Amino acid sequence: MASEVATEVDVTKEGEEEQVVNPWEVSAGKGGIDYDKLVDQFGCQRLDDSLVARVARLTARPPHRFLRRGLFFAHRDLNEILDLYERGEKFYLYTGRGPSSEALHLGHLIPFMFTKYLQDAFKVSLVIQLTDDEKFLWKNLTVEETKRLARENAKDIIACGFDVERTFIFSDFNYVGGAFYENIVKVAKRVTLNQATGIFGFSPEDHIGKISFPPVQAVPSFPSSFPHLFSGNDQLRCLIPCAIDQDPYFRMTRDVAPKIGYQKPSLIESRFFPALQGENTKMSASDPNSAIYVTDSAKEIKTKVNKYAFSGGQDSIDLHRKLGANLDVDVPIKYLNFFLEDDNELEHIKKEYKEGRMLTGEVKQRLIAVLSELVARHQRARARVTEEMVDAFMAVRSLPNV
Amino acid sequence: MASEVATEVDVTKEGEEEQVVNPWEVSAGKGGIDYDKLVDQFGCQRLDDSLVARVARLTARPPHRFLRRGLFFAHRDLNEILDLYERGEKFYLYTGRGPSSEALHLGHLIPFMFTKYLQDAFKVSLVIQLTDDEKFLWKNLTVEETKRLARENAKDIIACGFDVERTFIFSDFNYVGGAFYENIVKVAKRVTLNQATGIFGFSPEDHIGKISFPPVQAVPSFPSSFPHLFSGNDQLRCLIPCAIDQDPYFRMTRDVAPKIGYQKPSLIESRFFPALQGENTKMSASDPNSAIYVTDSAKEIKTKVNKYAFSGGQDSIDLHRKLGANLDVDVPIKYLNFFLEDDNELEHIKKEYKEGRMLTGEVKQRLIAVLSELVARHQRARARVTEEMVDAFMAVRSLPNV
Repeated sequence: MASEVATEVDVTKEGEEEQVVNPWEVSAGKGGIDYDKLVDQFGCQRLDDSLVARVARLTARPPHRFLRRGLFFAHRDLNEILDLYERGEKFYLYTGRGPSSEALHLGHLIPFMFTKYLQDAFKVSLVIQLTDDEKFLWKNLTVEETKRLARENAKDIIACGFDVERTFIFSDFNYVGGAFYENIVKVAKRVTLNQATGIFGFSPEDHIGKISFPPVQAVPSFPSSFPHLFSGNDQLRCLIPCAIDQDPYFRMTRDVAPKIGYQKPSLIESRFFPALQGENTKMSASDPNSAIYVTDSAKEIKTKVNKYAFSGGQDSIDLHRKLGANLDVDVPIKYLNFFLEDDNELEHIKKEYKEGRMLTGEVKQRLIAVLSELVARHQRARARVTEEMVDAFMAVRSLPNV
Repeated sequence: MASEVATEVDVTKEGEEEQVVNPWEVSAGKGGIDYDKLVDQFGCQRLDDSLVARVARLTARPPHRFLRRGLFFAHRDLNEILDLYERGEKFYLYTGRGPSSEALHLGHLIPFMFTKYLQDAFKVSLVIQLTDDEKFLWKNLTVEETKRLARENAKDIIACGFDVERTFIFSDFNYVGGAFYENIVKVAKRVTLNQATGIFGFSPEDHIGKISFPPVQAVPSFPSSFPHLFSGNDQLRCLIPCAIDQDPYFRMTRDVAPKIGYQKPSLIESRFFPALQGENTKMSASDPNSAIYVTDSAKEIKTKVNKYAFSGGQDSIDLHRKLGANLDVDVPIKYLNFFLEDDNELEHIKKEYKEGRMLTGEVKQRLIAVLSELVARHQRARARVTEEMVDAFMAVRSLPNV
């Protein structure tokens, strides 16, 4: 494509089911999100088996289950990152979070778990942006509250196990300025209002804070935004692991990058983690029964899974034994797909469940065990995160391994 | 008016001569700028004799000649500033410059000369914003070049005689961040794209950098943008001396201020300093013969005034002796009005010239003497400005008198 700036209206076509995917809205058509359509319409590339195999070969370790199972399913120029890594060159990782709520749910952890794997596998440095300014602009929150949430969320992120010697976490309200602000202004100069409206769907009634924000999320893609980390290395390539709803920001970023003398960031993009009620939307932090939170107790997890996790099993045991489960809509199976590490066990469960030998209750039991262990482990790790550790990750400093 | 956010299209009315005044364009109708119309259309107040007398009384010194002669001619809530000053309370001053050229011309000095007078008369602190980001966004300049120009222009500003113990000079590229950035985001959240388009005349083809900028010029109006100066004094009032083309920024600012819990800034606004060729536009820094620069030699000043300063005198000496000069269009008289301190001498020259007893050449001689002295004095002062002094004025620090 001549330009990577696809327009938001491209995402739905007249007469088809409506599917809206942008950073602020994800709503599926009747059959759930059509990821193939998204890839085509956003103009990104499919992450196929040969690329996964290449990652495994280059990192000399098995690919993360999110890769093995196609949960990170799309990319932009990941091959270029692998090419330079193969030549012995470095790159850096960039991911982020908008801190709009106190507690993260499992869906929020996905990019961080995956980024942690990438950091370990490639041994590269990482910047994590907490967009407290974005949440102030879009939500009914005070500046102070978004800053507090950013710091609280940083604790959950740190609990995912990042290496403090390779990781810089920053909040926009604390870090915007200097070289970072210069890059914001450089990007903003290269995006017309028409383009921004096309990409993000802004309207004349929107406040100009919204229109000013996309460059803020764009510029961590450029190493010169972090002189304390990458001084003198302005052409260092960047890889961004994120959910695919963030793609519009980086289409814009990639369109602007060569115009201001910078490298385009590469992306590796995930599917959405489904709500307990099913795959039609992302989970909502505002509906506590739509998600498992990292603060949930074992009892809450058990209740939520048993009560709310949508089952693809049949209405009666007899019927289930006869027809088996519909795995395409079954939420416990989808969750196990994300979180059960053992491929053989997962395949076994899917086969037994699909063929009616395993019941929904049994699958849910296994899921409850998996999630309880994961959440308990997270809670133990988070309890060990001190204010001093947060300060250490967020300090504007050079990193020993860069 | 319920809202102070007047729209740009208000400025011209169907069938009238076109007059466009905004921060980026000043073009007069045939009869020059109609300041009365501007005051009405912008919704500001006239600065009348009684207010000037009140300034003189409160400051116990004669009003600046720019005030005596109506060159600062409009205001917004100046009376409120004087009320609080009379009660023994403080306020602070805010002015600025967009650093798009190396050398300032005389028109650029007007707000700084006047601000220096206000600082001395009221003994208040002052912030001076150098909008290098704005000039990067609007002009074909690199970030580095606008930052260099900001620093060079700071030297000319310092040469106007500001008190380093009461003055903080900052450039946006250096200072944006922290509390200042928080205020930018707070303002941006309260201005819709519709409103910004109405105030500033943005179009869909404009880049979003332009649309992002007005909050950056707005927030020095708020003391909380300068925690090192005004910590704990978030309701301190602000007075902004500026040319009237900057009014749109502060209409927007005043509209937003109460919505985010801040005081509206007050303004005191000047006419435009005319080009040598006449009063129809502001001077252009890109046409060296349209203006006297603070870098001009005595010889250049003499040549420019003699050759380019538009004369209201008659075509022949005989006719001039008979009809006298038209002072309304005479540029030497207008310049003397700005820069000749002695009221009696000015009145004498105007009378003699108007009645044909004084010739254009004689008036120009006097102007050349006045400007040569002013420019030479400025050059001597600027030569004494060291890099260390620039650092001192631009250091983020508390001020002893605040």
